[in-house]
Amino acid sequence: MRMGNQTFMFEKPPYIIGASSVVGPKEAEGNFGEYFDLRLNDDAFGEKSYEKAECKMQKTAMESAVDRAELKFGDIDAILSGDISNQIAASSFAARGHDAVFLGLYGACATFGEAAILGGMLIAGGFMNRVVCASSSHFSSAERQYRYPLELGNQRPPSSQWTVSAAGAVVLSVNGGGPKITGGTLGKIVDFGVTDVNNMGAAMAPAAAECIYAHFAEAKRTPGYYDLILTGDLGKYGHGLARKLLKEKGLGMPPSFNDCGAMIFKEEQEAFQGGSGAGCCGAVFSGYIYKRMKEKKLNRVLIVPTGALLSKTSSEQGESIPGIAHAFSVEN
Amino acid sequence: MRMGNQTFMFEKPPYIIGASSVVGPKEAEGNFGEYFDLRLNDDAFGEKSYEKAECKMQKTAMESAVDRAELKFGDIDAILSGDISNQIAASSFAARGHDAVFLGLYGACATFGEAAILGGMLIAGGFMNRVVCASSSHFSSAERQYRYPLELGNQRPPSSQWTVSAAGAVVLSVNGGGPKITGGTLGKIVDFGVTDVNNMGAAMAPAAAECIYAHFAEAKRTPGYYDLILTGDLGKYGHGLARKLLKEKGLGMPPSFNDCGAMIFKEEQEAFQGGSGAGCCGAVFSGYIYKRMKEKKLNRVLIVPTGALLSKTSSEQGESIPGIAHAFSVEN
Repeated sequence: MRMGNQTFMFEKPPYIIGASSVVGPKEAEGNFGEYFDLRLNDDAFGEKSYEKAECKMQKTAMESAVDRAELKFGDIDAILSGDISNQIAASSFAARGHDAVFLGLYGACATFGEAAILGGMLIAGGFMNRVVCASSSHFSSAERQYRYPLELGNQRPPSSQWTVSAAGAVVLSVNGGGPKITGGTLGKIVDFGVTDVNNMGAAMAPAAAECIYAHFAEAKRTPGYYDLILTGDLGKYGHGLARKLLKEKGLGMPPSFNDCGAMIFKEEQEAFQGGSGAGCCGAVFSGYIYKRMKEKKLNRVLIVPTGALLSKTSSEQGESIPGIAHAFSVEN
Repeated sequence: MRMGNQTFMFEKPPYIIGASSVVGPKEAEGNFGEYFDLRLNDDAFGEKSYEKAECKMQKTAMESAVDRAELKFGDIDAILSGDISNQIAASSFAARGHDAVFLGLYGACATFGEAAILGGMLIAGGFMNRVVCASSSHFSSAERQYRYPLELGNQRPPSSQWTVSAAGAVVLSVNGGGPKITGGTLGKIVDFGVTDVNNMGAAMAPAAAECIYAHFAEAKRTPGYYDLILTGDLGKYGHGLARKLLKEKGLGMPPSFNDCGAMIFKEEQEAFQGGSGAGCCGAVFSGYIYKRMKEKKLNRVLIVPTGALLSKTSSEQGESIPGIAHAFSVEN
């Protein structure tokens, strides 16, 4: 059911019947370590390149999510996935070899939200029965693609975040049990003119605020409806900014408002503002949140993956950083 | 209505109520020149970089399509778009500034098909009323991103294709008149192990054949049903290969089976195997096909955009080129 320009509530909400997360060693040592399904000792995952490692992480997360849903991959109608590597190669190569339709998505680090909402629509609309939604990122492939060769050992400014090496995947199904995607709010591009590529949180915060504000206005809910409201990877500074922007719009957010990126690492891990990357929200949801919901420790959650729609070229050519966010609600 | 694992027919097909195409000078001199809506004399479109030019081309095509649909952009619920630049920056920046939901897609040069089918599903599923679907590519931004600096003046092998500088956009609507998207067949990734980045047609042909074969098997139609069946940008060699693969599967294709890339340039334009790029199929459909359908010169068309899911990095790391194709049927 359409609730406004951006918000949809599913009359027959799809079930999340399986989820899995794969993380690198640094993420395994972070705050959610025990909740991740596969914790790697080697962030190359036995592969010859970090790009291949990321691909294998996403492929493993998808296959493990399907396995946990007690299905075979042949039961899956479509893969909806994306990542932040050029041409979303990690996702395309992870999907290769599976006998399912492939729908590649790009919403930067908001991709997991785009996948979950579109996947939910394909099921709720009667077009598909079971889909896999996935996203990933890898610190080492992202660093050398977006910034500098790792070997340079560049200093990181205090405003920076740490791209997580992680993949998350969920299986959505027209029938089953467990947590359901009950609806979502798709986001618009918001650009406040931030040009500092070492301060993505600030660039994404206005889009997060826009999407969250639209969600509550259109879904006619209040923040208290949810046990937890999590943005994707704004980091500490960006998340504070989103809270401030929402307050200015008249929406005071409760202490249950937090950020996957701000939460994933421990203070002593020196990730500064926190984690980032398309895999951050995907892995935190598929690892931590999903398990807490299965245990009924959490019952109503709003997940708001956030993305910065820049490329290395766009920034080199002086463009500011457009932000986007998509929110989806998961309920027991 | 679901017709099989990959094929869907819409019970209430969305109308294509507006379309527009913007092309560079070389494309304007090609076989469809007179059909394109805006023909540029300057492939930089007055911008300081080719990347900004591509973005402006896509933005112009979208705005012009909305204008031709006799709507304002504020009437549009969502933009579904993509391109082959890193992080689909051309599309993200083209969508920026419009008050509509943004769903970034990446299916390489098959993106226009992914956008049209997903857009159709969002409307047919009752989630949206009006969406814009768009794709673009630019010769000069693609060359320097995927291959070599233009200044090197590298020789092009006879198996190569010429990335078109073009953008195409359509407006889909729940009500209206004119040609309708009646259904589609979403594609799976097919990889025959081709590694030659100068022979994309060969890499994509097996995926095109898989999608077309699935379409006819699942939709229970024969190739004679359509006035025209067009693959996206296989080029001459790749298209011949797709025809051969389909014949081997027992599906003889009629002379109405052709390829946007093979058709867009004249022989003397030295594009070798023909045009390519995410804008190729988008502009040929939005420019030529749509107008021929409005004139009732064509009444039933199957469009099969084709994509090569490689990145520069994946090829440098020795990976083969996975192909994908998505087919959608447009009928008066």
